[in-house]
Amino acid sequence: MVRIGVVGYGTIGKRVVDAISKQDDMNIVGIVKTKPDYEALIALSKGIDVYTLPERIKLFEEKEVEVKGTIDDLIQKCDVIVDATPGGIGVRNKNQYYLKHDIKAIFQGGEKVNVADVSFVAQANYEEAVNKRFIRVVSCNTTGISRILATFIENGLEIEKARVFIVRRGADPKEYGKGPINDIVLNPATIPSHHALDVKTIIPNIDIVTMAVAVPETLMHLHMMYITFSESISKNEILDILYRTPRIIVVESEMGFNSISQVIEWARDIGRIRYDIPENIVFKESITVDGKELYFFMAIHQESIVIPENIDAIRASLNMLSKWESIRKTDYSLGLIQEGKMYGE
Amino acid sequence: MVRIGVVGYGTIGKRVVDAISKQDDMNIVGIVKTKPDYEALIALSKGIDVYTLPERIKLFEEKEVEVKGTIDDLIQKCDVIVDATPGGIGVRNKNQYYLKHDIKAIFQGGEKVNVADVSFVAQANYEEAVNKRFIRVVSCNTTGISRILATFIENGLEIEKARVFIVRRGADPKEYGKGPINDIVLNPATIPSHHALDVKTIIPNIDIVTMAVAVPETLMHLHMMYITFSESISKNEILDILYRTPRIIVVESEMGFNSISQVIEWARDIGRIRYDIPENIVFKESITVDGKELYFFMAIHQESIVIPENIDAIRASLNMLSKWESIRKTDYSLGLIQEGKMYGE
Repeated sequence: MVRIGVVGYGTIGKRVVDAISKQDDMNIVGIVKTKPDYEALIALSKGIDVYTLPERIKLFEEKEVEVKGTIDDLIQKCDVIVDATPGGIGVRNKNQYYLKHDIKAIFQGGEKVNVADVSFVAQANYEEAVNKRFIRVVSCNTTGISRILATFIENGLEIEKARVFIVRRGADPKEYGKGPINDIVLNPATIPSHHALDVKTIIPNIDIVTMAVAVPETLMHLHMMYITFSESISKNEILDILYRTPRIIVVESEMGFNSISQVIEWARDIGRIRYDIPENIVFKESITVDGKELYFFMAIHQESIVIPENIDAIRASLNMLSKWESIRKTDYSLGLIQEGKMYGE
Repeated sequence: MVRIGVVGYGTIGKRVVDAISKQDDMNIVGIVKTKPDYEALIALSKGIDVYTLPERIKLFEEKEVEVKGTIDDLIQKCDVIVDATPGGIGVRNKNQYYLKHDIKAIFQGGEKVNVADVSFVAQANYEEAVNKRFIRVVSCNTTGISRILATFIENGLEIEKARVFIVRRGADPKEYGKGPINDIVLNPATIPSHHALDVKTIIPNIDIVTMAVAVPETLMHLHMMYITFSESISKNEILDILYRTPRIIVVESEMGFNSISQVIEWARDIGRIRYDIPENIVFKESITVDGKELYFFMAIHQESIVIPENIDAIRASLNMLSKWESIRKTDYSLGLIQEGKMYGE
């Protein structure tokens, strides 16, 4: 059993911990938290050991929240660290803690590209991450875009141009102090947004441009996709590819899916924990083909889409399984597989 | 002086009345309202005569709101009617009232194309509307798109493809009962949205596709524009064209414009009535050129963008002035002209 420590227990960290607890080839040794708050108590109540930074030990003791030791203590007991701290903290942790230990680490998309040896989206470039010491799982929108573009490429379609117009959620549900309210914010005002550059760290040489705005909504991101292939395609060809690819779900307007809140309601109704949706959601009726050109709407759940990538990144870093073996194992364990869905193997 | 009646006194109607009152070549004879509400009282307090439907006269008398007569009475005193009723009512008014009188009429974009002899955006096709009996001013997003595409065409650029990704305001400020809240709604789930088809009523033969979503925000629409020309262009060429074109304002991120709420705040600060912005707002830093391809963000104020078009449509219907004479006169009267701005004449 591979031993994992998770540094940071926020939006991504707590989901990674839950996902690891469902794997039969890895164990959670503990987490690192900086604050003795309700999230620390939830972790303890789940039987997870809590560690903290050396300077924070006293704070935990004062609040009488049980703490097992320092981040260095945790690292010494682990094979891989998943660093799920906010952007910019991961690189500090790398320099201060990870480099001096014999440890591998997975970083998140908030870190700069050069924090790691490779940026990672399982379906796109699993093999490149095999045995690497430092791996960076890219951010939610980049993961969603890379996953679907890699799917087309892997199925033999040549992409001439990808143009993606992103309507971002303004904040995550728990970010009570963050905007916008009653606004559409250019995010950023310049073009391209960082997503295009980040996709190129996963799929080099692709001609991609992204534009993004942020809106007053917390549920999911919405992508307006416009892809030009080098040759004509058909709607059925696209549907066939999407239907047989894991981590992509095609929903139908006819069945009541016309907005992201309806997708979230579906996830709540089928009992998904925290209504998480780690799959790309493609709206079937929007798939529109005109010669070489393809248009569709795609929704991305910002809080959970990178969770399967984190699990796969652990397996790649230790060369535990091959690409599709890992993807299949992760998806089964997280309950992502749907009846009648085939793999893109 | 040309005599105008305005049927409907909602979002568009009240703005058209205010705009007509600023013209020196046309007069408001009266308006038609169906309800004796606070908006009727505001009209009366401005000295505007109120008419109503025959079956509503009694209701006005009961509420002791002064009413001058029926819609037929108003039409007999007018040269042109501006019909600013909700979509679908205009065509009923045409069949029930306008056709039997010797009257010209301007309809709004909520009506179907065949309600009128011509669809209208002043900068794009003023001449086609000259002396026409029935003219349809297209809807807000279509007006904004047609205005800017026509500007490029008139300045000698050949458009190969226009792809527009529209983030629509969920409701107007006064529509308290309309959604969405915390959602992004496919609007519609199919592609193209009606805007592409509607632009073709103004600029035939253009290769245009539009996709639209609606978000929880009431201030303006936001367009992500992606235009391919038949030949390479430069950023300066685009800026030069936009700077010298009326009804288009280029705002700078550097000066604090990074979202639509900041554009609205500017309109409030300079004292625009109802913070109306009948101009297309283009965000300078977003203008991005790559060979033949052009990208930029554009904001459209849904409540006021068609107001200058309604005034110009009146002049076209009666052949009162030529295209640029009318546009110039309308813009001066409404205070749209900015120091140092040249006309596209």
